[in-house]
This record gives sequence, C-alpha cells and structure tokens, in this order.
Amino acid sequence: LVKSVASSLLVDKGNHRHFMAKEIHEQPEVISHTLSNYLDMANGRVSIPDLGIDLATVPRVTISACGTAYYAGLVGKYWIERYARVPVEIDIASELRYREAPLPEGGLALFVSQSGETADTLATLRYARANGQRIASIVNVRTSTIARESDAVLPTLAGPEIGVASTKAFTCQLSALACLAIALGRARGAISEEQEQELVSALIEVPRLISTMLVDETPYVELAHLLSKARDVLYLGRGLSYPLALEGALKLKEISYIHAEGYAAGELKHGPIALIDEAVPVIVVAPEDDLLEKTISNVQEVAARGGQIVLISNADPEKIGCELAAHIKIPDAHPLTYPLISAVPVQLLAYHTAVLMGTDVDQPRNLAKSVTVE
Amino acid sequence: LVKSVASSLLVDKGNHRHFMAKEIHEQPEVISHTLSNYLDMANGRVSIPDLGIDLATVPRVTISACGTAYYAGLVGKYWIERYARVPVEIDIASELRYREAPLPEGGLALFVSQSGETADTLATLRYARANGQRIASIVNVRTSTIARESDAVLPTLAGPEIGVASTKAFTCQLSALACLAIALGRARGAISEEQEQELVSALIEVPRLISTMLVDETPYVELAHLLSKARDVLYLGRGLSYPLALEGALKLKEISYIHAEGYAAGELKHGPIALIDEAVPVIVVAPEDDLLEKTISNVQEVAARGGQIVLISNADPEKIGCELAAHIKIPDAHPLTYPLISAVPVQLLAYHTAVLMGTDVDQPRNLAKSVTVE
Repeated sequence: LVKSVASSLLVDKGNHRHFMAKEIHEQPEVISHTLSNYLDMANGRVSIPDLGIDLATVPRVTISACGTAYYAGLVGKYWIERYARVPVEIDIASELRYREAPLPEGGLALFVSQSGETADTLATLRYARANGQRIASIVNVRTSTIARESDAVLPTLAGPEIGVASTKAFTCQLSALACLAIALGRARGAISEEQEQELVSALIEVPRLISTMLVDETPYVELAHLLSKARDVLYLGRGLSYPLALEGALKLKEISYIHAEGYAAGELKHGPIALIDEAVPVIVVAPEDDLLEKTISNVQEVAARGGQIVLISNADPEKIGCELAAHIKIPDAHPLTYPLISAVPVQLLAYHTAVLMGTDVDQPRNLAKSVTVE
Repeated sequence: LVKSVASSLLVDKGNHRHFMAKEIHEQPEVISHTLSNYLDMANGRVSIPDLGIDLATVPRVTISACGTAYYAGLVGKYWIERYARVPVEIDIASELRYREAPLPEGGLALFVSQSGETADTLATLRYARANGQRIASIVNVRTSTIARESDAVLPTLAGPEIGVASTKAFTCQLSALACLAIALGRARGAISEEQEQELVSALIEVPRLISTMLVDETPYVELAHLLSKARDVLYLGRGLSYPLALEGALKLKEISYIHAEGYAAGELKHGPIALIDEAVPVIVVAPEDDLLEKTISNVQEVAARGGQIVLISNADPEKIGCELAAHIKIPDAHPLTYPLISAVPVQLLAYHTAVLMGTDVDQPRNLAKSVTVE
C-alpha cells in the first residue's frame, strides 16, 4: 500500500484567505525540500538520481509539458543549453504528440507535470517511449501514472497543491530542473567543479531570498488597482525571463480573467507594440543580468508610446531612463536563480489583482486542477 | 550594378483601397512565381538551388526569424520534420542570439526575412556562422544584407511589399519552405518519387485554390462587425494550423489593435479557457485533416462556455456539433497545403476588421515595415 503525501497531511488554508496565498508563502520551505533532494549541501555538489542513461553522451533532451509546467520546461531548456551545452527541444505536449516529431536515437525525453496525470503529457510520454527515448519525469505526485510509466522520476516535494493556478509546484519544478542542468553540465565537462559549487551555493540561497519578498505585500495590493482597470496587459522578458513573462501572463489570465499575453521582449517591435496605449500596462521582467540593457531599450519604446510600465527588477530605476508606473524590487541574486526569484512577484501580482476583482481565486471559472482528458 | 526589383516596378495600389488589399490579391500570382522557381512543374519534381551542404546527411536544421517570418518558419519546422524526418530547432531571433544555444557540427541554419535587413535575424545569422553552421536564407530582397551574408539564398518572388502587415511575403516564404521540405525529404529517402510528385501537384494547385477564396469578400465584411466589437480574440489551431493561429492573431493586433492571441488548441484547457465569455470570440483554424476531430472537441468546450466561434474550415459544419457564429469555408486541398490556404482568411479577417474600425491599415501605429534596429 502506497500512502499518498496528500492524504497524510491536514490540508487547510492556515492563516491565509486562499489556498493560493498559502501555497505562494510555502515556497521557501518546499523549494528547500526539493533542493535538498538533489543537492549535497555540505559539499556544494548536485546529486540527482541515476536516470539510467549516460548524461555525458546523451545527444539531445526533449522536454514536453502543458501550461505552467511547459513554462518551467522552457526555463529548463535555457538552463540545460547554457550550462550543459546539450541541445534541448521543447514542445507543448498536445503539439509534440501529433506532429510526428523525429526523436534522436538514445535521446532523453523529460516530462513535467504537477499531477502526473495530464492527458496530453502522458500520451506524449508513450509516443516518446515508442520512439526509443529514455523517459524521465518531474512530477509532484509520486504515485501518478506519469511517474509509474517513467524510467526515472525526479519528484518535486511541493506537497499537495490545491489552488488551480499552479505556484509552488512551478518553483519546485524549476528547482529540480536547475539541479538536472548542473548535473548534465558536470557530466559533460561543460562546467567545472568550482562552477558547480558556485551554482549550488546560488540555489541554496533561493529560499531565503524568496522569504524576503513575502514580508510585505502592500506594493502588490496597490498595483492591483492599476491592473484591475487594465483592458489588457502585456508581459515582456528576454532570455531566462521570457518564460517568466509567459507564466506571469498565464497567471493573470487564469485567476483575474484579464487578457494578458507574454512576449519575448525582442518581438515587441514585430507586432504587439501596436496594442500599446494608456489602457494596456506593460509588465517587464528584467533582472540585472547581461540582457538588461537590451530590455531597457524595449521599455523605452513602450514609454515613448504612452504605455504604463511595471518593472520587476533589482536594477536601479535610474538606469531605465523613463518614467515607471511601478517598480517591484527583487533581491540581487545569481543569474541562474532569477527565474525562481521572479516567479514570486508574477504570482503575487495575479493573486492580489484577482482578490481585488472578486474572482474565485482558488477555483477560477472554466478551469480544472488536472487536465486528465485531452 | 544590381537593379532592385522594387525600383524597376511601378508600385501603386491598382484598383485597391490599400496596399494590403492589393498584396493579398496578388498572392495567386506571386506564389506561382515563387513555386516555379523551385519546382520542375513538367516533371512534378522539386528543384531547389544547391545549398552547398549534403541534404542527405544534415543532422539538424535551425530556423530563426522574427514576427510573421517566424511563424512561416514554424510551419517550415512542422513540414521538414514530417516530410524529411530531420529534427528542426526554431527560435525567435532575438532569443536565439542571446541564449548561447549550442548548434550542431555541420548543421544548416536557415533565416527568414522579407526585407533581409531585420537586425536580430542578421545578428543571429552571424552567431550561427561563428558557430560553424551552413547559412541559407529565404528573403524577398535579393540585394539585402542577409542575402549577401548567406551561403545560399532561396528568394521569394513576392515583389515589393508596401503594407506594414506582411501578407504575400508570408505565403511566398511558405512556398519556398514547402519546396525545401520536399527536397530534404527526397534527399534522405523519407519520401518516394511518387510522393514527391503528389506533393508537387498539391503545391501547383495552391494559386488556383487561393484565387477562388478572393472572389467574394462579403463574408469577411460581415464578420468584421462581430470582431470590431470584440474586447479580445482568441485564435486556435493544432499542428500545421497552430502557426496560422499565431499569424492570424498577429495580423489582428497589427492593424486593428484588437488584442488577439494565438494558442495551440490543446493548451486551451491549461489556462486561456478562463478568458472565454460572450465578449471574446474564438477563431478556430481547422481544415479537414487528421487533427480535426481533436480540435472539434476544443471547439465544443468553447461553445459550452458561451464563446462565439468563427470556424475556418472545409469540414461540414454539421460535424462540429455546436452552434457557430460564422463558418468561413476554405476549399478542399492536400494536407500539405492548408497553411497556405488558411493564410488568406486570416489576412482578410484582419483587413476588413481594420477597415471597418478606420485604422491606418497600411501604416499602423507604432510599427515600421522593416525592423532594422534591435
């Protein structure tokens, strides 16, 4: 008999008004649990389970998922390509399974799903198995079908997630993916032992840094007034912040029903800039990294068209060179970890906007927690 | 002295109110020109220029572009993977150039740009060259920087495109990409000579089929009344129709300033379905192919939530099993060619909506024809 983690815990909202708020606040703890499963903290090393495949020679990683888990996978692609120099293909599960994608001999297929029951992700797993891939999955429910059908499982230790809009499962998925990227990088000699220690130290800092962002939510309560009046919202980011822009937009869609869309900041001039006026706030995820300067030039274009800008960044707002409607300050961190850090403000912006608008935050209209049918 | 095609032609609107309308109507002719450059019509064979690389052994194709050209590239990815069984990586140029993507030894990098001057695409071309890729480009201006810096050029013969929102350049890019996919498929033995002839015959039919869709635009004029009142629009498609949903949404954004967003139909339940109510029409691109049945189930979910559905399809509306706000009938065609066929209704929907709303169709606010700065 396998006892599920969910049934052995008392699941309530604690002191929070909604499960979503509780789950946002649990992140320092559950990220820490998840990281401790994949890190040897004492020695500053990664230690992931044996995937039954030689990480040094795997020719390609194919990631597949749906919704928020897909955006976690997209961060994973950037991390693995940058830190391990392995090509990563990523696709929405409902697309990959039907487009007859050629998969490489001896490749690793990686599936990300909170419930482990997502129908399209499971079907894609079976397609990958039939096409000779080694199957690994990142799931939050260890007894799930996706976990059972995988050759190797990297569990997230997020605990039961009740809010339909995923929060802590997302950051735990990111935590597992970061550890996998470092392990791949080490196995292939793309990063040194010293770099490994630097990256591991950076990850260990994340729970503490996130805690500092959860102390005072009043800036989000204030910003909710701006966003709740918006006709539409654009969310921009570059590089590792691009998937966060997509996730931020999805969170707003899911619980506030505001039509927010995430865009790679460099694509702004190729179309979406036509939408910008005073009624369409633009939220920009732009931590202080080597892409900041490029994103600043996009921010200035938005400002020149009368757009109201909400900047999520640790950069000095003086650097931006234009007026901001708001600046959400994030802590300084290692570039590896900004996707984890930036996740919190995008969650809180959606949460407080939805609360102000009076929607059913934990059970938004039309949505189910696990999409177990196609 | 190289005389450019643009300067040697008298460029005017003919009998059309806007350049965009003229360019939409030119498509049968310019697609035909472009195809004739890459097809041996008499023998039903493809004949593309020598790319200076062995198509039979190329390990991977990496496609990079911006805006509409990126969506053409996404169709190209699906075609090449399906018909040639070569893995294709595609990325937005502004993302690929900065994320330090690992590129495979001996790979083919393919760049798509109407102007051939797109700044991010050019920078990515240089990144790919520095990383040992063979460089091919699909451009509309043969004297452009991207053409000059490529090892091989597949020109589109669209003639000068004046409207800022790309139409005929897009379908000519698709035409060149389809021929490349077939050539790759033949070189690798993934398709037989008989299949090649079938696919070539299908492409040859496209200009005639598109002509039949340009005879009567009154359904679009009527539908413009629905779309012009929409708060927002969702555009859905699966497989080869997914990039068309993205392109349809981009066209609406660019010239009508309506916030339209394209989504893979299978992702609907993972978030965007929360947006759907009477004020958000859903346009579904769903030709009669092997994915139709799956898309129909998504359409029914939209209908169950009170969404107004505009169906672009050649399928019998009886099959859909729910009420439609409108049905735009497309002609029956070979599955290969539906992206070319479906391009026309998504262009006309955006065009007539913008005309009704009184926007500056050929010179929409905030947008430039070629994005030659980052």
